[in-house]
Amino acid sequence: MKTRRTQNLMTVALVCMAVSIATKAQAADPLASWNDGPAKKSITEFVAKVTKEGSPDFVPPEERIATFDNDGTLWAEQPMYFQFLFAIDRVKALAPQHPEWKEKEPFASLLKGDMKTALAGGEHAFLEIVAGTHSGMTTEEFDRIVREWLATAKHPKTARLYTEMVYQPMLELLAYLRANGFKTFIVSGGGVEFMRAFADKVYGIPPEQVVGSTGKLKFELRDGGAELLKLPEIQFIDDKEGKPVGIQMNIGRRPIAAFGNSDGDLQMLQWTAAGSGARFCLYIHHDDATREWAYDRQSSIGRLDKGLDEAKVKGWTVVSMKDDWKRIFPFEK
Amino acid sequence: MKTRRTQNLMTVALVCMAVSIATKAQAADPLASWNDGPAKKSITEFVAKVTKEGSPDFVPPEERIATFDNDGTLWAEQPMYFQFLFAIDRVKALAPQHPEWKEKEPFASLLKGDMKTALAGGEHAFLEIVAGTHSGMTTEEFDRIVREWLATAKHPKTARLYTEMVYQPMLELLAYLRANGFKTFIVSGGGVEFMRAFADKVYGIPPEQVVGSTGKLKFELRDGGAELLKLPEIQFIDDKEGKPVGIQMNIGRRPIAAFGNSDGDLQMLQWTAAGSGARFCLYIHHDDATREWAYDRQSSIGRLDKGLDEAKVKGWTVVSMKDDWKRIFPFEK
Repeated sequence: MKTRRTQNLMTVALVCMAVSIATKAQAADPLASWNDGPAKKSITEFVAKVTKEGSPDFVPPEERIATFDNDGTLWAEQPMYFQFLFAIDRVKALAPQHPEWKEKEPFASLLKGDMKTALAGGEHAFLEIVAGTHSGMTTEEFDRIVREWLATAKHPKTARLYTEMVYQPMLELLAYLRANGFKTFIVSGGGVEFMRAFADKVYGIPPEQVVGSTGKLKFELRDGGAELLKLPEIQFIDDKEGKPVGIQMNIGRRPIAAFGNSDGDLQMLQWTAAGSGARFCLYIHHDDATREWAYDRQSSIGRLDKGLDEAKVKGWTVVSMKDDWKRIFPFEK
Repeated sequence: MKTRRTQNLMTVALVCMAVSIATKAQAADPLASWNDGPAKKSITEFVAKVTKEGSPDFVPPEERIATFDNDGTLWAEQPMYFQFLFAIDRVKALAPQHPEWKEKEPFASLLKGDMKTALAGGEHAFLEIVAGTHSGMTTEEFDRIVREWLATAKHPKTARLYTEMVYQPMLELLAYLRANGFKTFIVSGGGVEFMRAFADKVYGIPPEQVVGSTGKLKFELRDGGAELLKLPEIQFIDDKEGKPVGIQMNIGRRPIAAFGNSDGDLQMLQWTAAGSGARFCLYIHHDDATREWAYDRQSSIGRLDKGLDEAKVKGWTVVSMKDDWKRIFPFEK
């Protein structure tokens, strides 16, 4: 007898089944852009053992912290860090308001298009350009400026939006880890407010899970409002030894999994590996000059030298972009 | 006809109903320790309007950020900040390893039990005591030391564990906000690593949602391991103007609700109030000398003076502990 109640029950059950089928379909190949091989296998085996209740390697969900470098790990970083390309565009846009830049290095050379002379001053010149373009506005104004740039600026080689230059296999990996109860964080040398402008939409990582370098901020009461003004001084550099420090300050737990691509990530991986229980460390090796770029020990951007040696000694996973990834960018067929 | 399938369906439906009933029972009086009155009403009305889809005040769950001061807002802070009482106990415990403290202020007076002379040096003396007791160990060793102290040390007036000196109405408020899709954060002048040692267990706030003052950390490779050593230098003070700055650095979103009890929280409340859309600011007023303590404009600890004036002008909620709270501590009958 099909009463109304039975019909309702059947509806509930059908919905449940539909959800279950959808979940299974999704779970069928969560890492579809990864070739079968040791790298993919090391990931799925690690996730299987830390999520299996009763297993000696089981880790409760709240401790499943995974940290990801951004430049070169989640999106590309050639021919130069994208945030620096943003800074260069900002120097050009702001030049009319800064007539003094015509005479002042590194801005003068940069405005003439002479990048080599502009950057001859090394790190100091680099920081001058960043400070000059990342301060003097509120945090909310800066966020708007970054979003506008990301919506329009194109990569010099691919002519794609920068937010399209993300690695499809890493997007899948982020989603796969989250589906297995992990909390995913960015821990990167990039500016925290620059990364937050796209991390949520592009990676599914909310602002409060982005750890990065920070500039000093000044609280100001203005016309009945209250704002934070960005100052041209550095508060914290989230790179090398700064990465475990940034993790401790912001997250307060040692990650159980860490992902990077350069020597700047080495201390984060060392700190992650040194915790008790099951741990997972992974380096991405840029070895695909055809589909992306090939660089490692000699590169000034994203140098991977000591890290490559240590990965071998410690048995960390090293991903060959060439061999392990079916597809690099989402826009590839 | 009751087939096996129908039985299964009914089981599913019964489980769903049981869950639904349990949820409703829990929701019946989520703020049971709050007296009915304007303070409680202001909270429930705010939550109702920001969670109602289609309402002009609706706020999507990911933006429902609520920040709470700790000392005097979530737990008591008299006769002195509990973390400072911890530091005093540590000076006593560490004295045998520091024979030089016998001759060195503020330690010498403190060890003689002469608190007045010990603190005559003001903020400098205070920071000396904190630095001397909060550095020289790894972050994990410090966490263990704090947990041991919290498990045994007793409050000088009530003889209760410090973690029992939390406000029952605020525990209910934290749970109520989370049940309504809010993400709750601590944003306090206290040391971040001190607070993390109990925030998860006591407040249900995980380490990554605790923002506080920080000391400098040093990354060290040791015997094949990797540790963060606590240095006796300050990295960041999360108080007054530091609170909105700490929120921006760690959370990256302007809260929609903020809770404090002193002038040290004023900038956090101002910054919260100045955002667009519905906002909620609340001050706890310590006016119950019988059940807790009564202090405000003249107190050296938890002074509430400018904040009390601004709350009146801006129409922020001011909670009278005496009138608005049925019960203050969980151990009260």
